[in-house]
Amino acid sequence: MQLSRKSDYALRAVMHLAGLPKGQLASIGAVAEAQSIPREFLAKILKDLTWAGILVSFQGVTGGYRLARAPKDVTFLDVIEAMDGPVTLNLCVVNPKNCDHSKNCTIREFWLKEQEHFVRVLSKANFQKYKAVSKKK
Amino acid sequence: MQLSRKSDYALRAVMHLAGLPKGQLASIGAVAEAQSIPREFLAKILKDLTWAGILVSFQGVTGGYRLARAPKDVTFLDVIEAMDGPVTLNLCVVNPKNCDHSKNCTIREFWLKEQEHFVRVLSKANFQKYKAVSKKK
Repeated sequence: MQLSRKSDYALRAVMHLAGLPKGQLASIGAVAEAQSIPREFLAKILKDLTWAGILVSFQGVTGGYRLARAPKDVTFLDVIEAMDGPVTLNLCVVNPKNCDHSKNCTIREFWLKEQEHFVRVLSKANFQKYKAVSKKK
Repeated sequence: MQLSRKSDYALRAVMHLAGLPKGQLASIGAVAEAQSIPREFLAKILKDLTWAGILVSFQGVTGGYRLARAPKDVTFLDVIEAMDGPVTLNLCVVNPKNCDHSKNCTIREFWLKEQEHFVRVLSKANFQKYKAVSKKK
């Protein structure tokens, strides 16, 4: 029950971009260095985030990435689902058919409630609230 | 961020045993059939639950498994941690040293809060509340 490394890196990359002045681009190298993310892995993550409509990429030597919308309009749920697909705490919460026993299983109630809670908090956590803070020098 | 199959099966096995009359044993075969859990996998899970002190096993043809303590004294957290180790929603929540950036990372607050919530609800969910209900015939 642990966040994937891919989603963790993606959240931190988006946090970094959300902390930049509006419209400013960051290169893969700059994000990788600031967040200590392996560059090759980050390149794939930023591509996936762009494909998902969360980032916009600009080609060329002065190119880079920025958020596709305001930080307040990008949530943790958007980022995690772009990386790993729908958040599903247990298979039975998505489809009771995943478990033959869901009618007699009292535990499913627990997972349904926690699933609802978790998706709600992830969808309320946006990058206006969680953006990179400047390092004290 | 999904419960492992091993932990899901373990929770359901314990739920099944918690629903039996006090002191009654269940064989591996009976639990496997009632909960549609692959028998070989279940054998390993029940062994691990016994090793963790959650179940007691009795050898012989009339042997089987029962809870080592009252259902109200066994929690989801006990079972999940016996299967998969400490519940850790993100690496940084256990040890800030897992992330070089934890001082400047606003996201860590989020995971600390959710970790606290999740461990609390798992430790409050006991098998007196979540025990198997009889099938309607």
